[in-house]
Amino acid sequence: MSIITILGAGVMGTATAWPLSDNGHEIRLVGTHLDHDWIESCKKTGYHPKLKRSLPKNVKPYFIEELEEALERRDFIVSGVNSMGVRWSGQQLAPYMRPGDKVIAVTKGMEADDQGNLLSLPEVLRSELPASIRDEVSLGAIGGPCIAGELAGRRQSAVYFGCRELEAAQFMAENFRTDYYHVWVTNDLLGLETAVAMKNAYATGVGIAQGVLESSGGVDEAGAYMHNLAAALFAQACIEMQRVLELTGGNTAFAYGLPGAGDLFVTCQGGRSSLLGKLLGKGIAYPEAVHMMEGETLEAALFVQQMAKALPLMEKRGVLSSREMPFMQMLIDVIVNNKKVEFLLDRFFADCCI
Amino acid sequence: MSIITILGAGVMGTATAWPLSDNGHEIRLVGTHLDHDWIESCKKTGYHPKLKRSLPKNVKPYFIEELEEALERRDFIVSGVNSMGVRWSGQQLAPYMRPGDKVIAVTKGMEADDQGNLLSLPEVLRSELPASIRDEVSLGAIGGPCIAGELAGRRQSAVYFGCRELEAAQFMAENFRTDYYHVWVTNDLLGLETAVAMKNAYATGVGIAQGVLESSGGVDEAGAYMHNLAAALFAQACIEMQRVLELTGGNTAFAYGLPGAGDLFVTCQGGRSSLLGKLLGKGIAYPEAVHMMEGETLEAALFVQQMAKALPLMEKRGVLSSREMPFMQMLIDVIVNNKKVEFLLDRFFADCCI
Repeated sequence: MSIITILGAGVMGTATAWPLSDNGHEIRLVGTHLDHDWIESCKKTGYHPKLKRSLPKNVKPYFIEELEEALERRDFIVSGVNSMGVRWSGQQLAPYMRPGDKVIAVTKGMEADDQGNLLSLPEVLRSELPASIRDEVSLGAIGGPCIAGELAGRRQSAVYFGCRELEAAQFMAENFRTDYYHVWVTNDLLGLETAVAMKNAYATGVGIAQGVLESSGGVDEAGAYMHNLAAALFAQACIEMQRVLELTGGNTAFAYGLPGAGDLFVTCQGGRSSLLGKLLGKGIAYPEAVHMMEGETLEAALFVQQMAKALPLMEKRGVLSSREMPFMQMLIDVIVNNKKVEFLLDRFFADCCI
Repeated sequence: MSIITILGAGVMGTATAWPLSDNGHEIRLVGTHLDHDWIESCKKTGYHPKLKRSLPKNVKPYFIEELEEALERRDFIVSGVNSMGVRWSGQQLAPYMRPGDKVIAVTKGMEADDQGNLLSLPEVLRSELPASIRDEVSLGAIGGPCIAGELAGRRQSAVYFGCRELEAAQFMAENFRTDYYHVWVTNDLLGLETAVAMKNAYATGVGIAQGVLESSGGVDEAGAYMHNLAAALFAQACIEMQRVLELTGGNTAFAYGLPGAGDLFVTCQGGRSSLLGKLLGKGIAYPEAVHMMEGETLEAALFVQQMAKALPLMEKRGVLSSREMPFMQMLIDVIVNNKKVEFLLDRFFADCCI
């Protein structure tokens, strides 16, 4: 039996408690200051209002002020915060981290540095830790198609745990594996995070087709949707993920495996990234769309903003041009440069023919 | 202006008339004996009852008995029949074929020969032509995500034309290209057909998740579907498509491009292949499921049956084992060996980790 501390009581962080609980572990679920009301509900009734489920056994809720107590004797930590909370999460954990600590993050996203290199969020978290401890801890991330509500519903789910130290990934995976939560491990953390961060952005892109359909009169008199367009966008997304994985030395098979095509597929089934795309496809400008989705974290847009910063730098270094990334460039144009949606399909699928 | 003869007036064959018509070509639409009523309606009122649309201008309908007339002075032929009609189509065309003829087929499927080699359907059609003409004609196929009703609705669609003679593919593509029908060409006909034939089978496999959901009580009290499972199946499908493409010397990029991931995505949005999967996932045995879908061509099942024949032969030759194709093996077990659906997710994603 292990003790696991989850920092961040959003839906995904909280959902990881189910397989851990089913394996008999002790789980401490620590809400951030934003999660106060949820933790209060959990403490009072055991019910998580956002996830719409009662917590499983062996899960004890904590307020952020109780973090130190919640971290006592932990075997490893789950970082359950979203992209915007990663630095904060690192800062909270910093005083308590010790050599050999293991952290697995549910967050999907990347940050671009000043040279246009993409950093995975575990690396961003690492940068907030004291220099003395930074290289003494294992920081990993979960990638793959996993809707939180389904995991908490004990639905079949398959994911990767990525960590540069494979033994750490394997240790945490063993604590997690159940007959419904299938976990593979990889030491290609950067490749894994690249795929799962990109798929959020591309799910927004694929969602645009739905918005274009609605704004152009919807399903026609013979019942035609715009699935062909969505599928072409989906394919181009996979191609561009493969391209970036190749560039960054990542496992290119991730593009058409669980973290790429698989995770993109599930993200296209609904959720925030898709909805943003639908609004954009209806011709609503990005700032207005964000306003309409108030309260929702738009990790897809955050990633596109990072790519808007990274892509010109990459182009300057001669490693990747926007011509090779026409779909991402279109997302940058719409989300960052405030242009209208314009699909230039003839620019897609270049260099793929033989 | 070209003259194009379409043989087969099903929804896909007929839908190809739209871009051709918009480019000002003369189109002769020849129904098979199964299409008699549709052609009669087209002749009387110009309305195609199955496609639920009036034919565009410059399209003249013909009964199969008028094939010879419909082939006069044609520049190329569209084979619009389904998998089961390919040999028949070759037999009908055989007496009229001459050197330099070009045919593009909409059919998706493959046949396994006695050594377990997979033959593309244009090659099957070729085998029905007189030996004297067989190598003097160009036979190609269309692959990629293209629902017929959307093409006929002039919705954005992106496809490949595959043909060993690239100039023939290019010639036909030029006749077809419009601002809504985007066509790339490839000489990797076998790779293209491998991907698009496999995706039909895998769309059935992904559809099984929907049936499993329904038969296990549907969406749960917190709103959980089984999208995670469907996404894991989708990813494994792409991996197995990539594996077979690699084996057959096809363009492996097709696995995550338009013909693989893209076409699989659109096929998962509904249609016959998905519906078959849903019925199987509900625990209905294959023969009963086929009975419930009477009148519908189950190209997905035809392909699985071909793989049931080919895979043991491939295994014997040491080129591909069923262990490397656990998802296809599961489909074979359910569709050919009449076993119950059993997802063994832990057998998936083998050899994909690093």
